[in-house]
Amino acid sequence: MVKMSVADVEAFLAREFPQIAASGDFSVLETGPMSAKLRLNHGEHHLRPGATVSGPTMFALADIGIWLAVLAQIGPVGMAVTTNLNINFLRLPGAVDLVADCRILKLGKRLAIGECSILPAGGGELVAHATATYSIPPVR
Amino acid sequence: MVKMSVADVEAFLAREFPQIAASGDFSVLETGPMSAKLRLNHGEHHLRPGATVSGPTMFALADIGIWLAVLAQIGPVGMAVTTNLNINFLRLPGAVDLVADCRILKLGKRLAIGECSILPAGGGELVAHATATYSIPPVR
Amino acid sequence: MVKMSVADVEAFLAREFPQIAASGDFSVLETGPMSAKLRLNHGEHHLRPGATVSGPTMFALADIGIWLAVLAQIGPVGMAVTTNLNINFLRLPGAVDLVADCRILKLGKRLAIGECSILPAGGGELVAHATATYSIPPVR
Amino acid sequence: MVKMSVADVEAFLAREFPQIAASGDFSVLETGPMSAKLRLNHGEHHLRPGATVSGPTMFALADIGIWLAVLAQIGPVGMAVTTNLNINFLRLPGAVDLVADCRILKLGKRLAIGECSILPAGGGELVAHATATYSIPPVR
Repeated sequence: MVKMSVADVEAFLAREFPQIAASGDFSVLETGPMSAKLRLNHGEHHLRPGATVSGPTMFALADIGIWLAVLAQIGPVGMAVTTNLNINFLRLPGAVDLVADCRILKLGKRLAIGECSILPAGGGELVAHATATYSIPPVR
Repeated sequence: MVKMSVADVEAFLAREFPQIAASGDFSVLETGPMSAKLRLNHGEHHLRPGATVSGPTMFALADIGIWLAVLAQIGPVGMAVTTNLNINFLRLPGAVDLVADCRILKLGKRLAIGECSILPAGGGELVAHATATYSIPPVR
Repeated sequence: MVKMSVADVEAFLAREFPQIAASGDFSVLETGPMSAKLRLNHGEHHLRPGATVSGPTMFALADIGIWLAVLAQIGPVGMAVTTNLNINFLRLPGAVDLVADCRILKLGKRLAIGECSILPAGGGELVAHATATYSIPPVR
Repeated sequence: MVKMSVADVEAFLAREFPQIAASGDFSVLETGPMSAKLRLNHGEHHLRPGATVSGPTMFALADIGIWLAVLAQIGPVGMAVTTNLNINFLRLPGAVDLVADCRILKLGKRLAIGECSILPAGGGELVAHATATYSIPPVR
């Protein structure tokens, strides 16, 4: 039912997004029906003063996570582009690895909408929650 | 653990929000730890052309639902005010009753943040999804 | 440059959305290049306790206002559907008429995105601000 | 009327956010009554494939820009924390410097809400638009 396995997604990232792949910042943990899980392997450059993972890092984690969940369903055919992302920051996570648990709410021909819960990889309370919309290009 | 039961919430609405209570538009189905469920009993005035529940109706359902989930936790002490609501409309629901399944993501002293999934009362796919922020007044 | 004048928009509403038109709740004040202005003529049913215009009413004002700004540019060809609306409530307006000052941020073939500032009709500080996305159906 | 000039804001960043200040990624162009302007001086690490400034970079530009607009009004007293950010991506900007034109919509004692238009520094159409909410800590 899922068009791309974890290995497929990683190969796709290495080919099309070498910067993200080479950074080692993110690990794809899971792709499933209407879902995906992405891990942030945090480093110094993801932190802001107070030794806590920064907002832009959590934004990137949510955005890439939901986008990969979409790609896992439709396959690597044409690029989906983020048109809207709304994120609520709930608690300062500290300097820890994070997991984005992503779920597609609607997969249409032209638009995909998903949500993402960001949690500490080692367990604990919800750190942030995002919803995002992607525009899916027409099939050529 | 929950400070207000369904009966408490209904009594509170009848006292403080007689218009909402008297309209019969909404039924409180459930209050629980960090959650609440609210039903829309739809009528002609909730529909827009195409015979489908209108956007403002779904907005109200999500807003009241998450707000009641907050009140159920903190009790009827002072008014929480909506400061932000973000809603994604996923599918046209048609002319049906709807259920708002609401969950609090963070309950702070000053802010509460929650999410809400809107589904057909009779079952079926997700119709809309919202997240909202409420400002909680200082305890006097 | 604008495909629909105020009179065109009002005729369109009367034909396609008779409930909105007949209610007298809203007056189209202006259509312009990438913009529109819509007025709420408030009544008892728009107020919530505390004698202030309700959230769902402001949601409807923003949603209809931006949607009319889009229609004024593309003409009454096919229905644009709201897919996302994000609203920030800034101040309680009281029991007053409101004006939605709407501006299109992007008008694409498939998506239109706009913003809306809601102000007291008689002047005063910003009451609410919204951004919304509309899906534009393919031309047949 | 403004509590912090451009020089004040830059000194504050150098002291409290040395990573941001040292990166040279951002230049504060202006602080004014309820406003601020921030420039992105783009580099290779801000781009994603297709040679266009990335989403997380625009998120950071909007978030820091509105936050500095708030600080410019209230002074460097205690940290304001982002609680919500909603961003609409309108057009791919390409590999160019960007300017975030930020305006505060409401400055309360507990919450500040602002908006931000992101434009190419060299002129051209709107690239992205964001609104954000900040929680302002109680004065000690």
